[in-house]
Formats: sequence, C-alpha cells, structure tokens
Amino acid sequence: MGDPAGIGPEIIAGAWERLRAIPDCRCIVYGHPEVMRRAAELRKLSEYRLNTRINCVTCCGDDVLEVLPGTVDPRSGRAAYSAILQAIGDAQRGTVDAVVTAPIHKAALHRAGYHYPGHTEIFAEQCGVENYAMMLYLGASESATVSPHGLAVVHVTLHTAMKTIFEQITAESVLSKIRLANAFMRRIMADGSPCIGVCSLNPHAGEEGLFGDEEIQIIRPAIEQAIAEGLQVEGPKPADTIMLDARDGKYDAIVAMFHDQGHIALKLLGMYRAVNITLGLPIIRTSVAHGTAFDKAWQGVADSGSLLEAVRVAVKLCG
Amino acid sequence: MGDPAGIGPEIIAGAWERLRAIPDCRCIVYGHPEVMRRAAELRKLSEYRLNTRINCVTCCGDDVLEVLPGTVDPRSGRAAYSAILQAIGDAQRGTVDAVVTAPIHKAALHRAGYHYPGHTEIFAEQCGVENYAMMLYLGASESATVSPHGLAVVHVTLHTAMKTIFEQITAESVLSKIRLANAFMRRIMADGSPCIGVCSLNPHAGEEGLFGDEEIQIIRPAIEQAIAEGLQVEGPKPADTIMLDARDGKYDAIVAMFHDQGHIALKLLGMYRAVNITLGLPIIRTSVAHGTAFDKAWQGVADSGSLLEAVRVAVKLCG
Repeated sequence: MGDPAGIGPEIIAGAWERLRAIPDCRCIVYGHPEVMRRAAELRKLSEYRLNTRINCVTCCGDDVLEVLPGTVDPRSGRAAYSAILQAIGDAQRGTVDAVVTAPIHKAALHRAGYHYPGHTEIFAEQCGVENYAMMLYLGASESATVSPHGLAVVHVTLHTAMKTIFEQITAESVLSKIRLANAFMRRIMADGSPCIGVCSLNPHAGEEGLFGDEEIQIIRPAIEQAIAEGLQVEGPKPADTIMLDARDGKYDAIVAMFHDQGHIALKLLGMYRAVNITLGLPIIRTSVAHGTAFDKAWQGVADSGSLLEAVRVAVKLCG
Repeated sequence: MGDPAGIGPEIIAGAWERLRAIPDCRCIVYGHPEVMRRAAELRKLSEYRLNTRINCVTCCGDDVLEVLPGTVDPRSGRAAYSAILQAIGDAQRGTVDAVVTAPIHKAALHRAGYHYPGHTEIFAEQCGVENYAMMLYLGASESATVSPHGLAVVHVTLHTAMKTIFEQITAESVLSKIRLANAFMRRIMADGSPCIGVCSLNPHAGEEGLFGDEEIQIIRPAIEQAIAEGLQVEGPKPADTIMLDARDGKYDAIVAMFHDQGHIALKLLGMYRAVNITLGLPIIRTSVAHGTAFDKAWQGVADSGSLLEAVRVAVKLCG
C-alpha cells in the first residue's frame, strides 16, 4: 500500500482492473482495507466490494485512517513499515511469489522510529543480505528506442549524502554491481550476452586524470576484471554521453555511480513506465520508480503506469 | 575551429551554407585554412574556393596538418588555444561581435602546456572576470515541450573532480548562479519574469536532512535571498524530478549543482540542439554543447545542429 498519505493506495486502485487481467497473477494488498476502500471510491471502481474486488490484508491499526493526505505522519510510517514486513515474511514463507511496493515517505518512516534510507535497505536487512543493489528498469516499448530487452540501470551508491559516496565507490562494489546487472539481464533476455555500460564518477570521465582519478584507480580495474570473467562491459564513460547511447539501444544495462546519474536519465526516458527492482535478494521484489507525490495525493489523478509495469516485471521474474 | 583532430572543422564546413544564410551574420573561422579546406572537401562543399567560401584566419603553424584524426596531440592543443586567444582578442577590440567555439580536447590542451579545465576558464581569464558561469541553453522547438522561451541550465560547479564540489557550493556561489540565470533569461524573454528551479545536491533533496544538510545550510538560504530580491525561484528540489518539470515547461531556467545533473538532462532533451553559453563575460561567447567526438571525427557524419544553434543564439544576444 505504501504511505497512506501518498499516491500509493490510489495507484493500486487505479490499476486494479488491469492487474486482475494479467495472466497467472493474483494480487493481494498489504495495508488497511478502509484506506483501500476510500482509494477505490476515489478511482470510482465500479461495483466495488471489499475483499472481492481489492484483496487486502490488514497490517496496521485504525489510527492510520485519521492521517491527512499529503502530510508527513508517524502513523503512516508505522503502517507502511508493518505492511512491508508482513509482505516480506509471506514471501519468505512462500505464501506469495513476489512483493511489489508502492511509494513510502522516508521522513514519515523516520518519525515512526524506523531509520532506513528506503525500502531497499529494509528488504536487505530482513533477508540478511549484504550484496544487493537497487536497479531501475525500463521495459522496451513502441515509443522508446532503448534496447529491445529494455534498459536496466544499477546504482553503486544510492540513498546517501553525496559527501559519503566516495568511500562507497570501490573496485569491489563497482564489480559487484556489474555482475548483478549482468545476471539480471540474462534473466530478462532469452539468449545472448547483455552489453553493459559503466558511468564515470567525474565529468568527462575525469578527462584522463585531470578532474579526479577514481576512473583510473577504481572503475577501470573493476571493468577489466569483469571483462576477464567473460562479461561484455564498456567504460568508464561520461554519464551524459553514455545515457544517450543507452537511449539509442547500445546498452542493455548501465552501472551508475550515484543516484542522480541513473534517475535523471531513466525518469526523462519514461518516468511512469520505469520499475525499481532490488537485485541480490532471495525473494523477488519490484517497486514503482516514483515517490509518494504528496502534492497530488488523493486527488485521483496519479498515474498507475509504473505500478502496472512493476507487477508485470515481477510476474516475468517469477518465470 | 576547435581541436583539428576532432569534429570541429567538419561541423563548421557542414553548416557553412546555412551559416551564410543567417541574416545580419558574417562568419569567420579562426584556425588553419588547409584544415578547413580538407573539412570542406570531406563535406563536399560545392565549388569550394578558399577565402570566399570559408573565411579563415590563420592562427597556427603548418605542423597541425600532420595531426592524425581522433588522436590526442599537443600540436592540436596549441592550435586550438591560439585560435581561441586570437578570437577573444578580436572580440575585445570590437573586430568581431561574438565568439562561437567548436569543441576542444582538454587533454590535448594540457599536453600543449595549457592547464585549463575547458574553454570557459580561458575566456574568464582573458576577460579578467571571476563571477561567471557556464550555461547550457536549449531553444524552444516544435518537438521539445520545454518553456516557449527555451530552457537554460546553469551549473554551480562544472569541470572539477566530484570530490572538490563541496568546497565550491556555497550560499554565495548558488545565489550568484541564480542571478546569472535570471539575467540571461530576461535577455531572451521579451517580457515577464523567468521562473527558476534550483536542484538539490543530495538525492531526494537530502530527505529533510537524512542524506546531507547542504540543502538546509546552503541552498535554501541562497534561494530565500534571491526571492527577497524579487526573483521567481523554487527549490531546492531533487534533480531527477525538477528536470521532468523543466521538460514540461514549468521552468525557464534550472540551476544545477554539478556537471552531470545539467548535462544528462539537457543532452537527453536535445544533444545536437543544445548550446553552451558563458555568462558574466564582457564579450558574447556561445559554443557547441558536445565534445570532439574523436571516435567519429573526419568521417563526414558529425551533426552540425548544435553549432548552427550556437551561432543563432550569439546573433540573438548581439541584439
């Protein structure tokens, strides 16, 4: 359900009829049935009947019903967190095959006492994994000119202050993200080896060491190791030109060094089609790629496209 | 002319007929006539006659004729630098009204002994100015959905290692870039006040201080000061969402904190239409927004669009 003060409930309600039409897929919402009933009413779901039209598992108390739309509230943070935990538990027990998440608001989570930078880190902790990555994935479509396999973008650093990215960008972390991107695209592609482009950290790829040496000291050695392992990898290349090449279909996956490199490009290429996927977990987890959009929450105008795509990709990953 | 081993000469030759057709505009190339003759031959300029078809001022020796296409060569760096200096001198003396630059290769410049991160810093030094900024400008067109006035992107930091941006991002430098963006768009817009969006430095605008506090300590105070001065400014907002709003015409100008924020977005929105402009100089200087493209230089395929736009914007700024 995500943060009940955001657009999560209404994008689920807005997509519900189309979600029901996806073959071999049955959806269950983890949240609060009354919140979902209100969202369904907002989206004017015809003949809405609770538990038949939107299957909803109750994960939180009724205090969440008093939360005002578009506000940061610890009750929302608590409700969103409980829903996530229950869904992860069910996935680990095999009751559900995949978890798809709606947007949460990190400050609300924080005020509820849960100090996580985002969904991804909660999943990693609950699953006890350390080698994971957040990936954005844009499926191929008629309008986009990305690779016919779609375009995956993996981030070496993510929800962290820019001042702290340097300690996190190591040859080991870059190599691990290259491997994760490769493994994911192999699952998406029927055959063949994915072509992976790696962004530089510095402008102009450091211009041969003039603007920083992370390309020479860290990124290039990681790429050479990946190539030695038989992967098809290019870079480090300046992020602004590599994203143009990716749009033109040259790469199946991009490894970005920090949040904005990947997000600016992917959102411009297809904001409400992009899907967020956590790689390296023992369970399947996909998510919308956008936020809670508090400024337009509960107005019935939010786009359900990313949620629909997130469910479709999850079904594809289930095999 | 730019770096003779890059695509500079051929994009000038490729645009020459259209440059001659721009009203109230006469172009002179600063470079080497033989390099331009070869470029004209490559682009098959009909009935090419030197000094009538491409007016070229000789700025360097004949050693530049031995440079191989697509290679980093100190002779190219020296030739490019001499051409820039002569053009700046003529602009300062009033012999020419504006300088439009073709791409240079900074490593070639470096090997020739000129230690500048880019064109912009050479212009600033020659003109003796300290308060300047590099701006990207994307003119309005039928295909793009940016503001009808076009979209300007100013960078607070630019050709510098990512590790060094933090000392350069101050309330003073952010405010100065907001003012420059505002002043430029006032020259472009017939009337009205430009709407300026300011990017955050950290992902999610720091998520209320969770991922860094530069938004709270530095960027927000700069914006408040600009608003107090009567400017129409919004932010700091996450770069990935502000760029979507800019594409949708919400802003006339964006202030980006570092190179990739502005460049990834502008290049995806219109790589070969974007123009690079130096703000704060006593002379008019525009430039192509792309690089030397050594990988496709002297193959006769490079797109002249950005150069043409750069000349058109320069003519507009001349009034």
